[in-house]
Amino acid sequence: MAGEALDEFERIRRFFAPLAGPGGLGLLDDAALVDCRGGRRLVVTADAFVEGVHYLPQDPPDLVARKLLRVNLSDLAAMAARPLHYLLTTALPAALGAEWFAGFARGLGEDQRRFGIDLLGGDSVATPGPAALSLTAIGEVAAGLEVRRSGARPGDLIWVSGAIGDAFLGLALLRGGYPELAPEHSAALIARFRIPDPRVELGPRLAGIAHAMIDVSDGLIADLGHICATSHVAAVVELASLPLSPAARLIVDGEPALRMRLAGGGDDYELLFTASADATSAIVELSSLLGLPITGIGRIEPGEGVRLVDAEGRTVLADQPGYRHF
Amino acid sequence: MAGEALDEFERIRRFFAPLAGPGGLGLLDDAALVDCRGGRRLVVTADAFVEGVHYLPQDPPDLVARKLLRVNLSDLAAMAARPLHYLLTTALPAALGAEWFAGFARGLGEDQRRFGIDLLGGDSVATPGPAALSLTAIGEVAAGLEVRRSGARPGDLIWVSGAIGDAFLGLALLRGGYPELAPEHSAALIARFRIPDPRVELGPRLAGIAHAMIDVSDGLIADLGHICATSHVAAVVELASLPLSPAARLIVDGEPALRMRLAGGGDDYELLFTASADATSAIVELSSLLGLPITGIGRIEPGEGVRLVDAEGRTVLADQPGYRHF
Repeated sequence: MAGEALDEFERIRRFFAPLAGPGGLGLLDDAALVDCRGGRRLVVTADAFVEGVHYLPQDPPDLVARKLLRVNLSDLAAMAARPLHYLLTTALPAALGAEWFAGFARGLGEDQRRFGIDLLGGDSVATPGPAALSLTAIGEVAAGLEVRRSGARPGDLIWVSGAIGDAFLGLALLRGGYPELAPEHSAALIARFRIPDPRVELGPRLAGIAHAMIDVSDGLIADLGHICATSHVAAVVELASLPLSPAARLIVDGEPALRMRLAGGGDDYELLFTASADATSAIVELSSLLGLPITGIGRIEPGEGVRLVDAEGRTVLADQPGYRHF
Repeated sequence: MAGEALDEFERIRRFFAPLAGPGGLGLLDDAALVDCRGGRRLVVTADAFVEGVHYLPQDPPDLVARKLLRVNLSDLAAMAARPLHYLLTTALPAALGAEWFAGFARGLGEDQRRFGIDLLGGDSVATPGPAALSLTAIGEVAAGLEVRRSGARPGDLIWVSGAIGDAFLGLALLRGGYPELAPEHSAALIARFRIPDPRVELGPRLAGIAHAMIDVSDGLIADLGHICATSHVAAVVELASLPLSPAARLIVDGEPALRMRLAGGGDDYELLFTASADATSAIVELSSLLGLPITGIGRIEPGEGVRLVDAEGRTVLADQPGYRHF
């Protein structure tokens, strides 16, 4: 183990110690410190990526790092928490050289600056298999103002940030789909798949406004289903109201049936939330303040499950608990 | 991804949700909550295990789970922190069945009760390679009372809990060494290798007593070297004073040269700390209170590096920074 331990020290010193914040103690101690502020609650979440499952071996390491970080920041945002710190463990093939680490650490560094967070610690071990990465993110929220999945109430309106389906289409493009699409639109969709934009500004501002919230990772219908199941309510979504990016709209205009599949696609990392109708003006103001579309897409009702309806109110898809279409 | 996601939900519901504490929100939300108490600081650490590197595929899953948890609790103890919660991510081969998960979760459950901690959340993904596990542990300490590696001062005495070298000998036994050893002694040493006993009671009680502390994972000499390097001091250790278990003593009596190698063996997960000579009676009292040997093994001096000396004070090994014997 001594040889491996030496390598670990060197990796930590060169690539990870420069990312550490004050609580990380230079990554020189057994553990790290997080100060608690009065009236605050810490919010923690963890996600894992495996090479060949969540990303491809040839993917740029800085993008892999940033995506891993961002999916966790999206989880914090979905609780209305502001991100503060993270811990990282990496199990990596011995063949990965310093260049890969340098790229990975550069990606982390860029996003740390962007999101105002720092590294607290972690572990770096070798694996004979594909790389496995795990990131734990820590944020904070004023105690009692965290937004959970279980707070949706009949009468609430349902809102979603940004655009839905871009990541689904980006992946389809990477697999050779839609060759006729203009390059700038292709690039935009692929970028949305490769590197999510967690709604870290919006999430904390929805504290006190949203009754229930989740980030769209499994797909809009499935994630709305999670809200309905934990809140013991039903949701009705108007298919025509789903917000599409200009690039997605171009594709859907040529293939209208696709719209329903976009409601099932995952990896958008938009915020999906419910709020009482009274909150509408506050939400419209937030959208304007942040320059981020926030679109009303339906309403919460008594009952269970998620229903998609067309412009005439006819059910085009009913997703009942325990019966999954996607 | 939908099929995999379903499996994950089922695994979480059956095996992990029962382990969640109140802050884990039933593992039903995007993230978990940790309350901050006035005057307290949270202490966080993370470690990763890879199948075939840190444990063997045939190892009982409950032992794997408990060892992963315990090495993290040992890190918290080394900061004088009391453990509270943990997050877990697992990247596991699809072939692992419900039986493996049940064993793994049973091990976690047993140790949760033993150490008074609970699960906050995490992630469960599939890997085509060997299993990769990552655990983040969260503890707390009164603000300012955390013990770091960097606080050792010339004149401090050096102490270590329990016994040193058992894990090294346990591994040697598993590899066929010392076949003449009595079965009860073999079993004791192998158990110490398989499942460490993190000093969670001792660590927090050393707040205000220890100047510097670390847990023995890389080996006593190497870990003392970490204290010396971060504290900018030197250490002198009397080889004859190293605390050995009855089983280890039997082996060393027949092979005296082995004693020095035990000072280099890792995985003991004992606490190694320095304290001023004034603190000796408090340390002796703690040892008696906890029924745990705490042995003075040397002293801190100005300078750098770790020296092992024999009964006559002659240097038998000098471990200078940047020059590693082990």
